[in-house]
Amino acid sequence: MSGATPSPGPVPRGDALAIARALIRRPSVTPADAGAQAVLASMLREIGFEVFSLPFGDGDARIENLFARIGTGSPHLCFAGHTDVVPPGDPADWRSGPFAAEMDGDVLVGRGAADMKGGIAAFVAAAGRHLADRDTALSGSISLLITGDEEGDAVNGTVRVLEWMAAHGQIPDFCLVGEPTNPERLGEMVKIGRRGTLNATVTVEGTQGHAAYPDRADNPVHRLLRILSDLTSAALDEGTPFFQPSSLQVTSVDVGNGAFNVIPARAGAKLNIRFNDLHDGASLSDMLRATVARHAPRGRVDIRVGGEAFRTDAAPEVALLVEAIEAETGRRPVLDTGGGTSDARFVARYCGVAEFGLVGASMHKVDENVPVGELKQLQAIYERFIRRVMG
Amino acid sequence: MSGATPSPGPVPRGDALAIARALIRRPSVTPADAGAQAVLASMLREIGFEVFSLPFGDGDARIENLFARIGTGSPHLCFAGHTDVVPPGDPADWRSGPFAAEMDGDVLVGRGAADMKGGIAAFVAAAGRHLADRDTALSGSISLLITGDEEGDAVNGTVRVLEWMAAHGQIPDFCLVGEPTNPERLGEMVKIGRRGTLNATVTVEGTQGHAAYPDRADNPVHRLLRILSDLTSAALDEGTPFFQPSSLQVTSVDVGNGAFNVIPARAGAKLNIRFNDLHDGASLSDMLRATVARHAPRGRVDIRVGGEAFRTDAAPEVALLVEAIEAETGRRPVLDTGGGTSDARFVARYCGVAEFGLVGASMHKVDENVPVGELKQLQAIYERFIRRVMG
Ligand SMILES: [Zn+2]
Ligand SMILES: [Zn+2]
Repeated sequence: MSGATPSPGPVPRGDALAIARALIRRPSVTPADAGAQAVLASMLREIGFEVFSLPFGDGDARIENLFARIGTGSPHLCFAGHTDVVPPGDPADWRSGPFAAEMDGDVLVGRGAADMKGGIAAFVAAAGRHLADRDTALSGSISLLITGDEEGDAVNGTVRVLEWMAAHGQIPDFCLVGEPTNPERLGEMVKIGRRGTLNATVTVEGTQGHAAYPDRADNPVHRLLRILSDLTSAALDEGTPFFQPSSLQVTSVDVGNGAFNVIPARAGAKLNIRFNDLHDGASLSDMLRATVARHAPRGRVDIRVGGEAFRTDAAPEVALLVEAIEAETGRRPVLDTGGGTSDARFVARYCGVAEFGLVGASMHKVDENVPVGELKQLQAIYERFIRRVMG
Repeated sequence: MSGATPSPGPVPRGDALAIARALIRRPSVTPADAGAQAVLASMLREIGFEVFSLPFGDGDARIENLFARIGTGSPHLCFAGHTDVVPPGDPADWRSGPFAAEMDGDVLVGRGAADMKGGIAAFVAAAGRHLADRDTALSGSISLLITGDEEGDAVNGTVRVLEWMAAHGQIPDFCLVGEPTNPERLGEMVKIGRRGTLNATVTVEGTQGHAAYPDRADNPVHRLLRILSDLTSAALDEGTPFFQPSSLQVTSVDVGNGAFNVIPARAGAKLNIRFNDLHDGASLSDMLRATVARHAPRGRVDIRVGGEAFRTDAAPEVALLVEAIEAETGRRPVLDTGGGTSDARFVARYCGVAEFGLVGASMHKVDENVPVGELKQLQAIYERFIRRVMG
């Protein structure tokens, strides 16, 4: 997107609706970019940002990403998000085209309206207004970390951009992730962390034999049952003020033995743990290995820690974000850690992070949409937050 | 085999070894007969039996069976067995051809030597000697129920012959099944019953969902684990003087879910129960249904009772068989109910039954064999038993 960027047409700076419509009209279904990042880069340059195009991956795996920054000083506030969207399904099911960005009264309809081109648009508009309104030079700096691979594998997206940022001295003091965090109404919820996630495969070897002679065999299914029973019969914890109880779900058990009367040689299971900050990947791995060893000397467990639990409510910016939300909406947001993972888990390795965006009710569904009033209110919250952070 | 029966050549009546060799030379690997029953029928006719050829099934499923009887009076003693054999594997692995019936010193080698052409030969020789030796008319009657489908599906074998026998007034007072019952030495063990067997498939329906939101899903794996844990954590019983403890083996669990983070919609398991006479198929089915219902309202269990437990040591003929064995071998056989099922379970529906034959150590293996001395000793036991039963 460095040289010949397509012209997005005139998009009034500070107008979140116009910016959102320009972005939605690019059908950037993961991993396609469809020009979405070029549109964004062009708008950012226009309001003074330096834009770095950061494609990662080769061939089919190539993903467009960008990092943009204005100012060089501290505090450095970064906004993180994604231009990619999930597939729209059958366009005929939509009240208007999923990429037409048409208005239905005061509501903007389109794939990405809530998740999260609307959120990006609100931030770009807020930054544009902040940069235009201030009567002195920008004291700190504002940046954007935008990936085209959040809904996909996330391999060549935020993780790679953060590595680049670290290598180039671009790690911010705080990062606001603009994912839709509100279940029903704007201002209800800020995410200040996420549970960790861990996948494990348990495999138990036994000794094959005939079901009529169990004494001559060693039934690996029975050993596996004792392991899984131990793992699921007691709760891992009861939760904390900021976290739900940790949860262990056995998602598959597979033996693949077609014969009722044959004791099989091997049995396996898959499980997933979502854990709060009472645990970490290492402590849970130890627990899993000990449970397997207790019941199956010839058992093993392969573990992949997808992310550690993290909590960022200690960062002073979180209090400023809560104040900004309450001032604009009259609602005091709940600080929450629920739900699935997001790219915030990668950002948390480098700096403080919180997530706040639009209402998520319509995301990933047909007729995804955002009311214009909500978009403008999010812009106002972001603008107030930028002002407070910049002091 | 009614009209043009192939001539087996001269087989001296009363010579178990010669009869066994003639039978082994017919490669009657289930479901093939290869002329084995015609050889047998010819020999039986020669010593006075009336032979009924009873093929059942059509096309590929056609199985040769025979029923033969001499005399019409009571007591009616029947010998049951099979001429079919399991495949020999690679003939090159054998010390002599699996169907050559060659002698290795005093040992007869060949597929079926122990299981159970040798047993049939011992009985035919014993019956022939008994019929030749007696100086008065046969008081009772002697019959043979020989199937060609014991090692296979057993659908068109013993079950069908017994139905035919019942329809034709041929049900005996007692049946001796000539399967190899001795673990190591002739005379060690008589089978006087078998455990029952039951197969069940448990299926649990749940509600699919994301592992991060278990509250919105209903994990069928966890329900299935509770069911299987209940079923396997306590013994069904502690056994009885004649029976091992009943045993429940979960032989497969299958979910087939490739994704660690998706709670599946369905989970299933297979299990087999071998049960003694403290239970029956109905009581165990009730127990299984109740256990499934306790943990999974949307669970079901499909049950197939393969055979009920039975015990036949109350028949007076069993004591006569034990006496005959002890008189010939000096060993008092254990009355046992262990091991897999045999066709005795079908016979037990009609009359008293016990199983006694050769040593089973080499059965179903390469170089299956029987020492000639053992074959002759079994013939002597059978002859003594016939004499005692006939009074
Ligand atoms: Zn998103
Ligand atoms: Zn057999």
